[in-house]
Amino acid sequence: MVRGTLYIISAPSGAGKTSLVAALLEAVPDAVVSVSHTTRSPREGEVDGQHYHFVDAERFLGMIEDGQFLEHARVFDHYYGTSRRAVEAELEQGRDVILEIDWQGAQQVRRLMPGCQSIFIVPPSRAALQARLQARGKDSEAVIERRLSEAVQEMSHYPEYDYLVVNDRFEEALEGLKAIFLANRLHTRTQREMHRRLLEDLLASTPANP
Amino acid sequence: MVRGTLYIISAPSGAGKTSLVAALLEAVPDAVVSVSHTTRSPREGEVDGQHYHFVDAERFLGMIEDGQFLEHARVFDHYYGTSRRAVEAELEQGRDVILEIDWQGAQQVRRLMPGCQSIFIVPPSRAALQARLQARGKDSEAVIERRLSEAVQEMSHYPEYDYLVVNDRFEEALEGLKAIFLANRLHTRTQREMHRRLLEDLLASTPANP
Repeated sequence: MVRGTLYIISAPSGAGKTSLVAALLEAVPDAVVSVSHTTRSPREGEVDGQHYHFVDAERFLGMIEDGQFLEHARVFDHYYGTSRRAVEAELEQGRDVILEIDWQGAQQVRRLMPGCQSIFIVPPSRAALQARLQARGKDSEAVIERRLSEAVQEMSHYPEYDYLVVNDRFEEALEGLKAIFLANRLHTRTQREMHRRLLEDLLASTPANP
Repeated sequence: MVRGTLYIISAPSGAGKTSLVAALLEAVPDAVVSVSHTTRSPREGEVDGQHYHFVDAERFLGMIEDGQFLEHARVFDHYYGTSRRAVEAELEQGRDVILEIDWQGAQQVRRLMPGCQSIFIVPPSRAALQARLQARGKDSEAVIERRLSEAVQEMSHYPEYDYLVVNDRFEEALEGLKAIFLANRLHTRTQREMHRRLLEDLLASTPANP
């Protein structure tokens, strides 16, 4: 079994990451999104083990102490984290694992998993970003300003990522993401495992070349 | 102008490289195949500057002495080589340049152009390779054996390449090559040049985040 690759995908709110990742999962076989652990309560329709692993704070803090997280963060009163064991199990099964996390989580994961690949998605313009942040509802000026400021803060970390994808036309951005996944699978270090028997067959000596 | 990437594509005879590269050039904008210099005479239909740069031996040897070749080789009585200046001119124009050369040329180019990317193409089985080598005409057993032996020799160098593409189904192999070219263009180091103005626009400070 050829080990999968761990991908980090980050983006500011309003860049269209969620739709792109959903379409990517449809298009790329053997790629999965990691299911995070959280201490917050399930919302209407959320399924334990599918949307999140819902655990209590005591359990979560114990997992932090045991070094079980590739990354974790506290957001207001709740914890969120990515279990190393769950990710490793998927990678060992040959699946590419996608973590949808922010730049802070990405920094933590890179330290622990230096072979990971990271992708940053940006919107096609400042105006498009503002429009998308405003379109979310009838929020106040101040709330939208804060979101924009957070988005700028997140985007300032794009140079830390291996790849940068501009989500201008959705289909083109999706092609880009698919190409990154496919090209990584064609690296010789992966292919020599994947095609071990073929390569032995091709390189068997000939009568003239014993 | 964002500099292009230099690609080496190698394969044994019978792997289908020529058809794949032709289809790749149709599919990928701004990719070109480098035109080699040679001392052999033009064959029927070959155009100087298009199929080869045809030069005499004195000129070729002078170019070797001046260090003008990224790689060169003598095959029987003739010299073949890739001019560094021609390749650099294309790269500077933002085009990806493809060199179709063997493992020996690839080793020379890697030393001089450490940023190049190299791709090795193999046939899907030993039987397919033999069938393709035989299908070329009514050659003797001995000639076919020699070709097979040369192919095995060439293929033994696949671990020196960044990518390995198995030409089983043509369309799939072509998708792989296209993905390698596209993914490379999405590397942050390339994209930050390509989208300099967009990134400045996106990262401009907000009233809340001066």
